[in-house]
Amino acid sequence: MKNKAVVLLSGGLDSAVALYLARSLGYDCLCVIFDYGQRHRREIESARRIARLAGCAYKVIKLDFAHKGSSLLDKKAEVKGCASRIPDTYVPARNIVFLSLALSLAEAIKAKEIFIGAHAQDYSGYPDCRPEFYRAFKRAAISGTRSGVEGKAPGIRTPLINKNKAQIIRLGRRLKVPFELTWSCYRGGKAPCGRCDSCRFRANGFKGAGLEDPSL
Amino acid sequence: MKNKAVVLLSGGLDSAVALYLARSLGYDCLCVIFDYGQRHRREIESARRIARLAGCAYKVIKLDFAHKGSSLLDKKAEVKGCASRIPDTYVPARNIVFLSLALSLAEAIKAKEIFIGAHAQDYSGYPDCRPEFYRAFKRAAISGTRSGVEGKAPGIRTPLINKNKAQIIRLGRRLKVPFELTWSCYRGGKAPCGRCDSCRFRANGFKGAGLEDPSL
Repeated sequence: MKNKAVVLLSGGLDSAVALYLARSLGYDCLCVIFDYGQRHRREIESARRIARLAGCAYKVIKLDFAHKGSSLLDKKAEVKGCASRIPDTYVPARNIVFLSLALSLAEAIKAKEIFIGAHAQDYSGYPDCRPEFYRAFKRAAISGTRSGVEGKAPGIRTPLINKNKAQIIRLGRRLKVPFELTWSCYRGGKAPCGRCDSCRFRANGFKGAGLEDPSL
Repeated sequence: MKNKAVVLLSGGLDSAVALYLARSLGYDCLCVIFDYGQRHRREIESARRIARLAGCAYKVIKLDFAHKGSSLLDKKAEVKGCASRIPDTYVPARNIVFLSLALSLAEAIKAKEIFIGAHAQDYSGYPDCRPEFYRAFKRAAISGTRSGVEGKAPGIRTPLINKNKAQIIRLGRRLKVPFELTWSCYRGGKAPCGRCDSCRFRANGFKGAGLEDPSL
């Protein structure tokens, strides 16, 4: 029987690559998709489509962050991006919350690994994308769970952590990731705005990889 | 202006003592109450009443653990308790999930501390009640949040961690905790069953403290 993995799937490019990578490593993947009031809600539909195309089970977890403080949740706020050191799209403790719920699920289904597509370009800005955070979370997971006490805590896999966007895109291409289904734009429009940080990172990534973005 | 604290309030005895302690230390407390499909749902109503009586704001966060694996969530399972080393009422990674959401909220409202009533008698069984878990979580919170990066991560306060139930009850009495409003029984009945671990710990605690349980 295949080992199980829980994959955090946002609908964006990075997590889609993480999913296809986990699948290529032979894991039976359960995708976790968070519906947390993000203004770019259409990424949820993208995530569903990606999971279905990959032939993987998925679960949408509705989550009420219920407190604002981020331009990603507050539809009245403007998405400015990286003007300050930590972007205004930072959602308080978001990846800790996501990972904790993924950990709970992973423990319940006895998954061997949790995959998350956090990477280098993000951790210049988001503290919860830094390698030291994942190391610290792993230790908390080991000491705070039954599986940890039994020496079987799910691993926290961040296979993209040291890659830049162009490298991630090249890897995704080798893995046949359906980039045309992925959604990156932080603004909630019908088409990508082309101006927010996320759109710009994506465009630069495709440029750096020497590829066309099939979603445009 | 008072410092803010987020207090995890379950409706049980321990978290009520933690709330009254935080209040006595001068914190402006926001109580977080989790509605997570627990079979002893009436603890939610107890928690609301305790928060109101204490004059504190509260927030009920609905959470879909959405996977079973615990007698505390599965109404068909029998609550046996501590027959095995980790009780069957263990919910996968529960306190990590609760703390993560409390951390997100604490960061959003700029709270100085998070109070949780975990304590000694529990950590013989529940891994997420052990001091080493809280230390590890604190490190994850520091490395994975904006406030942590800025040297202002909320503290994780576990003031009851080394106390036994009788000591907690004596402390609660000094703080005038309304024990009659607290609910401990894991089973979902109209009156406490008197037989589950939680009922027995409570009864022994009151006995050890030389007090009557006003809820009986």
